[in-house]
Amino acid sequence: MRVTVIYGPRDVRFEDREAPRIEKPADAIIRISVTCVCGSDLWAYRGIQKVAQPTPMGHEYCGIVEEVGSAVKNVKPGQFVIGSFCISDNTCPNCRAGYQSGCQNLQFMGTAQAPYVRVPLADGTLVPTAELPSDDLLPSLLTTSDVLGTGWFAADAANVKPGSTVAVVGDGAVGLLGVLSAKLMGAERIIAMSRHAKRQQLAREFGATDIVTERGDEGVARIKELTNGVGADSVLECVGTEESMMQAISSTRPGGSIGYVGVPHGMRLDVFPVFFHLVYLHGGPAPVRRYLPDLIKLVLERKINPGKVFDLVLPLEQVAEGYRAMDERRAIKALLRP
Amino acid sequence: MRVTVIYGPRDVRFEDREAPRIEKPADAIIRISVTCVCGSDLWAYRGIQKVAQPTPMGHEYCGIVEEVGSAVKNVKPGQFVIGSFCISDNTCPNCRAGYQSGCQNLQFMGTAQAPYVRVPLADGTLVPTAELPSDDLLPSLLTTSDVLGTGWFAADAANVKPGSTVAVVGDGAVGLLGVLSAKLMGAERIIAMSRHAKRQQLAREFGATDIVTERGDEGVARIKELTNGVGADSVLECVGTEESMMQAISSTRPGGSIGYVGVPHGMRLDVFPVFFHLVYLHGGPAPVRRYLPDLIKLVLERKINPGKVFDLVLPLEQVAEGYRAMDERRAIKALLRP
Repeated sequence: MRVTVIYGPRDVRFEDREAPRIEKPADAIIRISVTCVCGSDLWAYRGIQKVAQPTPMGHEYCGIVEEVGSAVKNVKPGQFVIGSFCISDNTCPNCRAGYQSGCQNLQFMGTAQAPYVRVPLADGTLVPTAELPSDDLLPSLLTTSDVLGTGWFAADAANVKPGSTVAVVGDGAVGLLGVLSAKLMGAERIIAMSRHAKRQQLAREFGATDIVTERGDEGVARIKELTNGVGADSVLECVGTEESMMQAISSTRPGGSIGYVGVPHGMRLDVFPVFFHLVYLHGGPAPVRRYLPDLIKLVLERKINPGKVFDLVLPLEQVAEGYRAMDERRAIKALLRP
Repeated sequence: MRVTVIYGPRDVRFEDREAPRIEKPADAIIRISVTCVCGSDLWAYRGIQKVAQPTPMGHEYCGIVEEVGSAVKNVKPGQFVIGSFCISDNTCPNCRAGYQSGCQNLQFMGTAQAPYVRVPLADGTLVPTAELPSDDLLPSLLTTSDVLGTGWFAADAANVKPGSTVAVVGDGAVGLLGVLSAKLMGAERIIAMSRHAKRQQLAREFGATDIVTERGDEGVARIKELTNGVGADSVLECVGTEESMMQAISSTRPGGSIGYVGVPHGMRLDVFPVFFHLVYLHGGPAPVRRYLPDLIKLVLERKINPGKVFDLVLPLEQVAEGYRAMDERRAIKALLRP
């Protein structure tokens, strides 16, 4: 089969590799229905994260179970399943505390931009649906695997409650689904920071009440202006740079919370000014497995349509164009069909 | 009158200055009953924090109201009062949210190692007692002004609950009173990190159930060993260095909380590893004013004896010896009597 492999900056290829097979009793093999390119894939694509050797790519996935190992009990061949980008046993103390992304046997999915994928710890990682979902729901179901789960975690980590005033830093797919999540959690006011017309539009569709186009200190000043000089109750940091993090921290009221989910790259935070902002910081790789059952239900009941973040649909073999379009910000997020 | 003035590293003098007087209608003048040296005073004493010019010192205080400005309503001459090291109006939105240390009119007390002190925003900052307290309670009452309030905030920020497993990084007076606070909040297990016999002893008196003498990676490994490989629910970071912060973060379970109250000095935190620990971080200058009424009550009812952290009592004029003894770790904390 042919799969996605990154060789270096802006060098993504679709090339022959051996099809995956069951290696351990807890494994499952999934035939991918849809997969996609993640904003975090761009760190390697842009050369910010080094690529030491040709590396398969992809960690968002859903599809049909093809085969399971002898120890797998919760899913069976023929079922439609969605899995977290974090591979977890879902039984260790950290998983039981709801932090499957801190599982004592944690692995990261990394080969899902392909027609078939091997999922270790299948029982702990995959969630099956009762029936095969209708085709038009696939994009939204796919988002629960990472991008929606991560936006949801950002809002949850930022302690969004009914009536909250929320600001979202980052207008990528995670930020936009952070807006959707905050709306679902009952936020009264949602300020999206974006200077991109199409993304502003989608933010509004997802529930944003205000758009702030300014960045840095000016962006912070705008948020303060919109919140009677106090700052937002909850801020979602969905970028991962030092600048975006300081913008998030400075936009939060004392005692307010920041949920940060942008993978930090080269971020060395000067804690002295942070100290005086008196904010709560929580974040990390999202414990998507905790949220999957509820998020899948919301999609299946057609209460949310997070799949709208996919504004580019490509056959899997054109995956390189998906990376290119996202890198150039021509696309918010690229869906790939094997 | 003579007051404490720092001139530079290890150069603390007790010298003549004009007595304070009412400058604004919201001011009060307090005759100091007892004051003390704070661990944070040592940053300047050790030359880590630059001293640009001769600077008066001291921010922990209690005493008798001598005079009040025309706008002061809540305290009157003759009353015994305790104030926070943070000067706050206690009416702005941040104060009302319980973050008086993020007051929109915040100032810091800084001239309290003296016989008299001017307290701005007296109504928002000072808490009077119903009667003049007995002399033996003065040390414990003084601790509520900062060191106990700060240890309490560390435990509160670290979300200590009945049954929690808590680790405390730092065996200074704040860390020791963090142990006391965690005990009062119902922690089941309290691990104090200390390699100093006298401080270990006091930690045990205050409620520590375990002592860990190892530091850095070895300290983290010990905490993991004591918590079935998971980490503590709550960790109090009471030092303020990069090493102590990373030790705290690495000792916390995923989803656990760190309360950090050590003023960060030159701390540039690499957020990449922090991200994968999935912890809550909250801290800053403690909103002592929020806790003052309850903590004063606990002292007056003799339910706690936080004044035990003062193992050196000096006449105020010997303040320089107080700094020296704390710098050399001969004393945990020095009480000063004008």
